[in-house]
Amino acid sequence: MNGELRQWEKIIIGIDPGTNVMGYALLGVKAKTLGVIAMGVLRLNKFEDHYMRLRRIYERVAGLVEEFLPDEMAIEAPFFGKNVQSMLKLGRAQGVAIAAALSRQVPITEYEPRKIKMAITGNGAASKEQVAAMLQRVLAISPDDMPRFLDATDALAAALCHHYESSKPIKSGGSGSWKDFIARHPDRLAR
Amino acid sequence: MNGELRQWEKIIIGIDPGTNVMGYALLGVKAKTLGVIAMGVLRLNKFEDHYMRLRRIYERVAGLVEEFLPDEMAIEAPFFGKNVQSMLKLGRAQGVAIAAALSRQVPITEYEPRKIKMAITGNGAASKEQVAAMLQRVLAISPDDMPRFLDATDALAAALCHHYESSKPIKSGGSGSWKDFIARHPDRLAR
Repeated sequence: MNGELRQWEKIIIGIDPGTNVMGYALLGVKAKTLGVIAMGVLRLNKFEDHYMRLRRIYERVAGLVEEFLPDEMAIEAPFFGKNVQSMLKLGRAQGVAIAAALSRQVPITEYEPRKIKMAITGNGAASKEQVAAMLQRVLAISPDDMPRFLDATDALAAALCHHYESSKPIKSGGSGSWKDFIARHPDRLAR
Repeated sequence: MNGELRQWEKIIIGIDPGTNVMGYALLGVKAKTLGVIAMGVLRLNKFEDHYMRLRRIYERVAGLVEEFLPDEMAIEAPFFGKNVQSMLKLGRAQGVAIAAALSRQVPITEYEPRKIKMAITGNGAASKEQVAAMLQRVLAISPDDMPRFLDATDALAAALCHHYESSKPIKSGGSGSWKDFIARHPDRLAR
């Protein structure tokens, strides 16, 4: 791990997987300090082939995990969709992103979009722009560093939502560190 | 590769991914000779945790690819389902199986269940038992070697269907070897 990453006590990778655009973000946590380590999007609509898209998602997520060594992954996962076809495709995109994390022993927590919006803005029906604006304020992101695509801020929102959730006082499976997480979910640990 | 595997000109892995049971089979091809190298199921319903199931699928498929070095993968992939929830789950199960193959540069072809049944039995509405009985005959499987779970024979059927399809005279993307496949699908090759 390089020096810049070592300053963080915990790194959370946020993923917003889609079949046209995948957003990703890496959030660093150290005590009360939060920082955006990296964020961006993977544009998939230039690839016609469905498998090509899936491979790109897998490779990017695996690459980010290897580069930034995140402790946990938060994934934005809608549970409802327009139709079975689009849900199957979305499930596949989620599946390859999940596989990239699972194969590298990164524990995953998924959040519904509404839950993420609520955690960030206090409004479960907030727009993507409202979520992005709140993230900019909370994480003190300079306007120049704000991404052009809101899929990146959506991924960052998933990571921040996960941080809020995991640093809540313990109730039904909240709490913080990876050590705690493993103690509570031994089945998610590779043998 | 061990000696027993080296006798085959091509090895096809068939996968029938599901969230409760995953079937798999390895079909060896040498000229007109076909042989079942291995087949079985991965029972997932003993694991309550959804991620645990996905990790098991990923690990098993990755393990099979590493052990048997298949040249191609055939996957049974229904395109229609009861509801969006089950399709999302199925998509995820397919996604992790696909990721395990993609990350090891195995090209994938998917087939609808109806297409597989038609290829094996001549009847797109054949029962699983009819498919299993036909496989037993065509591949000369001794009754003792027939699997208890029909998800395994479904996976074998996907592999055999792929063999039939890829050894058809060339028309709209049929034909045989991996070399041909790569020539036709350069985008599926890792760089």
